[in-house]
Amino acid sequence: MIRDRRIYARSASDDKAPIIALVTALDALHASKIPLNANIKFVLEGEEEAESPHFSQILAANKELLRAEVWLICDGPVHQSRRQQILFGARGIARLDITVYGAKRELHSGHYGNWAPNPAMMLARLVASMQDNDGRVLVDHFYDGIEPLSETEKRAIAEAPEIDSEVKRELWLGRTEGAGKSLVELLNYPSLNIRGISSARSGDQASNVIPSTATAAIDMRLVKGISPDQARSRVVDHIRKQGYFIVDHDPDPDTLMSHTRIAKVASRDAGYPAERTSMDLPISREVLRIAESARGPIVRLPTMGGSVGLYMISQSVGSPTIMVPIANHDNNQHSFDENLRLENLWDGIELMAALLAGL
Amino acid sequence: MIRDRRIYARSASDDKAPIIALVTALDALHASKIPLNANIKFVLEGEEEAESPHFSQILAANKELLRAEVWLICDGPVHQSRRQQILFGARGIARLDITVYGAKRELHSGHYGNWAPNPAMMLARLVASMQDNDGRVLVDHFYDGIEPLSETEKRAIAEAPEIDSEVKRELWLGRTEGAGKSLVELLNYPSLNIRGISSARSGDQASNVIPSTATAAIDMRLVKGISPDQARSRVVDHIRKQGYFIVDHDPDPDTLMSHTRIAKVASRDAGYPAERTSMDLPISREVLRIAESARGPIVRLPTMGGSVGLYMISQSVGSPTIMVPIANHDNNQHSFDENLRLENLWDGIELMAALLAGL
Repeated sequence: MIRDRRIYARSASDDKAPIIALVTALDALHASKIPLNANIKFVLEGEEEAESPHFSQILAANKELLRAEVWLICDGPVHQSRRQQILFGARGIARLDITVYGAKRELHSGHYGNWAPNPAMMLARLVASMQDNDGRVLVDHFYDGIEPLSETEKRAIAEAPEIDSEVKRELWLGRTEGAGKSLVELLNYPSLNIRGISSARSGDQASNVIPSTATAAIDMRLVKGISPDQARSRVVDHIRKQGYFIVDHDPDPDTLMSHTRIAKVASRDAGYPAERTSMDLPISREVLRIAESARGPIVRLPTMGGSVGLYMISQSVGSPTIMVPIANHDNNQHSFDENLRLENLWDGIELMAALLAGL
Repeated sequence: MIRDRRIYARSASDDKAPIIALVTALDALHASKIPLNANIKFVLEGEEEAESPHFSQILAANKELLRAEVWLICDGPVHQSRRQQILFGARGIARLDITVYGAKRELHSGHYGNWAPNPAMMLARLVASMQDNDGRVLVDHFYDGIEPLSETEKRAIAEAPEIDSEVKRELWLGRTEGAGKSLVELLNYPSLNIRGISSARSGDQASNVIPSTATAAIDMRLVKGISPDQARSRVVDHIRKQGYFIVDHDPDPDTLMSHTRIAKVASRDAGYPAERTSMDLPISREVLRIAESARGPIVRLPTMGGSVGLYMISQSVGSPTIMVPIANHDNNQHSFDENLRLENLWDGIELMAALLAGL
């Protein structure tokens, strides 16, 4: 199974794979004297992993140069079934850090237990109030405004290969959330996730204290129709409804003593909205047709679960975006042993050549 | 206010203060040719801060030598009002670490959010289910079996100086728990406290993951009538009732995949029960009478909030125990700037001399 062998190297798949596939495809077309039908522009964004701090600026300053009938984005992985996939959007993101307060210092849990409020317990109750036992978010209006899926999009989701039971086994999961809905279906809803939580110390470092503060880091994945500001303000309203006075900086003693419950809510960044290109656009159909001619049946999905700043392109340049990834899903990106499966590279070169020549 | 000055030194108050007070009192009695009425034995336990791992053994091996009408324990602080206090017991303790499980590794919160269970959220819901908004523990039978207070004990609590509003201000608290009961009253109930909680990373180290595990460190303070094993098994039953399969070691993949919710519950140590000596014993009244003759009105309480292994003495030697502390409450014990207030040392010498000569 030589085609299943892998190249192990830093960023082998994310994001060297599509770059190598593209230039190799160009070389091959050139060597075979196959002409291009369209005017192709290449944009290599080297700051994507650092949240693309300058990309919007560059796009805005080069609107005319960078406008196109379609932007094909080659980031991300193919489907877990190893079939080629084409994604017509990505979820947006909004982050929040929540801190709640007990006494000004850690207290002896014997001398003050039962009397001094425990911020770890307060935070547990607060975040538990945000979601039910099956993952449904209980924040008021959390799902309001979601832009509905088209018939084509619904059909595409229904036709996606079933991978849930295999992924469940791969991840050692005894259950999944979402009331029986499949993973690909659930990615079309916004999510609220605890990225991390901490209060005092646990494990060997734990001591018999009532903690002084407790913090949770939250991320929300957004879908079309919900902006980062809307998502954050809905959560803030929810926290307020649980009896909390909201601050955006560490409260002073007077503020602490004059409120029964205080939560500091801070955003680490502005976040960004979701983006989704209609599968019914002529250019969308054209991309699918060419990809299918080169790679057989394609898994087509309205959105990927992760977040990519596609909105920058549609906002600044006004072009639709379609994601055409080539890397394997099990590539360990951003982690040890990052790898690119050789088959994915060969298939990627074929796909890129077909798109370059066919569009 | 020279008497309010303090000696700052490692263990200045905990536990050098009572040792110095005792030997100084003995010197003073000797110099003044005041005779002792009773046969006095001194026991200096040097491993108390390390949970006294050999004390029970030593007591058991020297039963006859160490038997006494009363053991006076000089550990701990005087009352927050700075009045002398005598405590007739201490709460026991039982500890538990709870770990719950998500996927076998941290997951990308975009690609799996809404579908893969989040152990931080599961743990938040689990610990939140253990206590109501006002600190009352909701674990079934948690308060069952508490040995009731005698009339003398109830009166002593009612007569204790009111310190709650001052301590609340000192700690910058906007509210306290316990349905309006006072701090000294609440110390006569068992408590359940989150010592620490953690899952993945928060703050600057947070990343967009669904954590793989989440852990909470719990301590319970016990009162007479509830053993450490009882307290622990009541919490374990509660966790089971929330739908968890309980294990005592990290579960293997098969175990994880065949249960919807798994909690590892581990005790770090056996813990120990509470101890309480009746205030109505002749020896209890005698100690109070002598202390009052030397130091004026005494704050007398059935128990301190913290835990001391008094049960070892009553169990092995069969003697009642009474705590006669001398250190100031604001001594920063176990922390930076530990200190002994000079007035407390002078008062402590007087008290020790009175007890040595008077009993």
